[in-house]
Amino acid sequence: MALADLSAAELADALATQRTAYDRIREQGLTLDLTRGKPSSEQLDLSEELMRLPQGHTAADGTDVRNYGGLAGLPELREIFAELLGVEPRQLVAGGNSSLTMMADTLKNLLLHGGVDSERPWLQEEKVTFVCPVPGYDRHFALLESLGIEMITVPMNADGPDVEAVRRLVADDPSVKGMWLVPTYGNPTGITCSQEVAAELTAMPTAAPDFKILWDNAYALHHLTEDETKSADVLSLASAAGNPHRPVVFASTSKITFAGAGVAFLAGSPETVKWFTGHLGKSSIGPDKVNQLRHAQFFGDADGVRAHMAKHREIIKPKFDAVERILSDDLGDSGVARWTTPEGGYFVSLDVLPGTAGRVVELAKDAGVALTPAGASFPYGNDPDDTNIRLAPTLPPLAEVESAMAVVTTCVLLAAAEKLSAG
Amino acid sequence: MALADLSAAELADALATQRTAYDRIREQGLTLDLTRGKPSSEQLDLSEELMRLPQGHTAADGTDVRNYGGLAGLPELREIFAELLGVEPRQLVAGGNSSLTMMADTLKNLLLHGGVDSERPWLQEEKVTFVCPVPGYDRHFALLESLGIEMITVPMNADGPDVEAVRRLVADDPSVKGMWLVPTYGNPTGITCSQEVAAELTAMPTAAPDFKILWDNAYALHHLTEDETKSADVLSLASAAGNPHRPVVFASTSKITFAGAGVAFLAGSPETVKWFTGHLGKSSIGPDKVNQLRHAQFFGDADGVRAHMAKHREIIKPKFDAVERILSDDLGDSGVARWTTPEGGYFVSLDVLPGTAGRVVELAKDAGVALTPAGASFPYGNDPDDTNIRLAPTLPPLAEVESAMAVVTTCVLLAAAEKLSAG
Repeated sequence: MALADLSAAELADALATQRTAYDRIREQGLTLDLTRGKPSSEQLDLSEELMRLPQGHTAADGTDVRNYGGLAGLPELREIFAELLGVEPRQLVAGGNSSLTMMADTLKNLLLHGGVDSERPWLQEEKVTFVCPVPGYDRHFALLESLGIEMITVPMNADGPDVEAVRRLVADDPSVKGMWLVPTYGNPTGITCSQEVAAELTAMPTAAPDFKILWDNAYALHHLTEDETKSADVLSLASAAGNPHRPVVFASTSKITFAGAGVAFLAGSPETVKWFTGHLGKSSIGPDKVNQLRHAQFFGDADGVRAHMAKHREIIKPKFDAVERILSDDLGDSGVARWTTPEGGYFVSLDVLPGTAGRVVELAKDAGVALTPAGASFPYGNDPDDTNIRLAPTLPPLAEVESAMAVVTTCVLLAAAEKLSAG
Repeated sequence: MALADLSAAELADALATQRTAYDRIREQGLTLDLTRGKPSSEQLDLSEELMRLPQGHTAADGTDVRNYGGLAGLPELREIFAELLGVEPRQLVAGGNSSLTMMADTLKNLLLHGGVDSERPWLQEEKVTFVCPVPGYDRHFALLESLGIEMITVPMNADGPDVEAVRRLVADDPSVKGMWLVPTYGNPTGITCSQEVAAELTAMPTAAPDFKILWDNAYALHHLTEDETKSADVLSLASAAGNPHRPVVFASTSKITFAGAGVAFLAGSPETVKWFTGHLGKSSIGPDKVNQLRHAQFFGDADGVRAHMAKHREIIKPKFDAVERILSDDLGDSGVARWTTPEGGYFVSLDVLPGTAGRVVELAKDAGVALTPAGASFPYGNDPDDTNIRLAPTLPPLAEVESAMAVVTTCVLLAAAEKLSAG
């Protein structure tokens, strides 16, 4: 029965029940962690063969990968990921170990130099504003904040960002220079941007001639079901719409091989790639091609990556199933929580009774379960409804995910009962 | 006999002789390359064991190096290089594969955010100017140019930058925000900055409160003789002088292990390190710690690095000896060339008859020998005397270095004879 429908006496009973349950949990002295989207040791072990690679040090084109050079990255690795990301190899740059770094470099280049379609460096504009679908990825927002870029939020709908809201923001205001999007199995919602929404975003009129969609396809290959969602082909759509330079695509093997020692990718129009590597050439003599050859040999081809991702799925699917089962069992009838059931990616997005997300995180912490801070999925850490909590179940072993989730649901019910009692 | 002392008839003879020699060389259809300071395959082979490392994936402190995290880099590798660079481990950051990237990040942070001792971001200053000792490293200058930072040159003396010239530039003009320096076995001069000069540079009054010395110690360990030059301890000197945040130190293993797949380092005051990693944390979730553990295991300790560098010396010393011998034999009496005899580093700096450096490079190119473009060692590629040529003998096999150098000396004499005949 929904908590909101209880009589005052029933609610007092529920509050007492949840307090007792919570106190019992606290006594257990747990230390569990659902904060970050990190792969587990078991997942990292899938790529242990990388430690013995590469065999030899010569690329397919004869390049000695140990030496300097090759700004755009190793051709054989770019070919594999070009196929997987649905782009031409010449549109793809293979970089270092972090796609976040490539995103930061892209933004800094836009600020300091302007893009291929800019009238001037963005720093010479009075103001630069980004559209941020929420809930979204906290590091995206922190990066913009650190660069002095203002943020305006739009809702994430079931098929991607609210296109009408985006349209309104970009149509007349030339200070609105770009938007973030995690298009496939988004962080934290698990939502995938539909072909239709992607088509509208790439074609919509924008007051800024150099509007950018930073298309962070971090989870493109991270399916949780056999029904493998296909990412929208944003570069082709943008090209067809006459805005070929609008999207800049990012991806990486961080959650495919080693989170800290993978290879990151950037894709865009040929002009965008030339622009990016042109600026990159001032600050680098080339990426770690040994690691790129290591990865190319490890995967062999695109199917090698797909087969590898299936092994990840086997490990993490039971954890996501446990989250769904426990949320459903404990909160299904409560009327105080909604959550996503993602078909891929790394997160479950949990909306609790408005005004209680911060309290839930605090209660969980006191009971030994670390959750991502409430509000983290919003610019400036500010969730106006104090309702969203991001759950990241990949890192802990299954048994710990189950223990942690039992704590989470207890905290959700306790916080809701507190709130409803107080109101 | 010196070319300048020849009679007109003798000079005509000399010109004819050099033309004949040059034409004979051209007929050989050579393709040789002395352009870049790259290690040779033989040098890269010294580190081949890296391809089978690391053993295991756990750092000394228990960290799984495969996962995210650890912005400042792996403690055991930082310990090794802290000893070698004469700094405290807490003052050292281990990064990605490129110290140039850490330099660029430092400059971009200064521009966008300002330093620990800045009144405002450098971009909010009317103008930012850097002092550039010449001849110097072309990529340093290209980076400043790309960031809109103006450059003023000062001469490199035998003990480092001309301190009096630097003093005059920095004393009254607050737009002069920093200087470059390759302090040990400088690029391309081979000059090492003395303790005395370093002490003066760290202590001198500067109009800018946040003046920076970008101390690119790329060749700190790259000795060509058994008399291993010790780098000035710039951080201690600066600290003692009351300017602890003035130097930012850079180094890397690019010319120790793999040029493209090594580990780069940044050192500075504790505040500088905190400032750098603070900004880094917006664009990275940590460096490639697998590669850092690989390096730590490969070296074992600081002595492991020293022993490894001795093997490099065995390979490259004969190449530097060949350059010296051929320059000396062919140009010793000519009166049209001076050159350095470096005790470390990667370059020989050759000064030819003023007004002929460009011509020498052109002649060499037509004879199949690629040299670094004349002027490359000066800001904006502008050598006002058209006299300096950078020779990089490490990459080609010894026999090719010898062949290429014979071409170079012929071109130097031919260009000089042409010039003197025309004058």
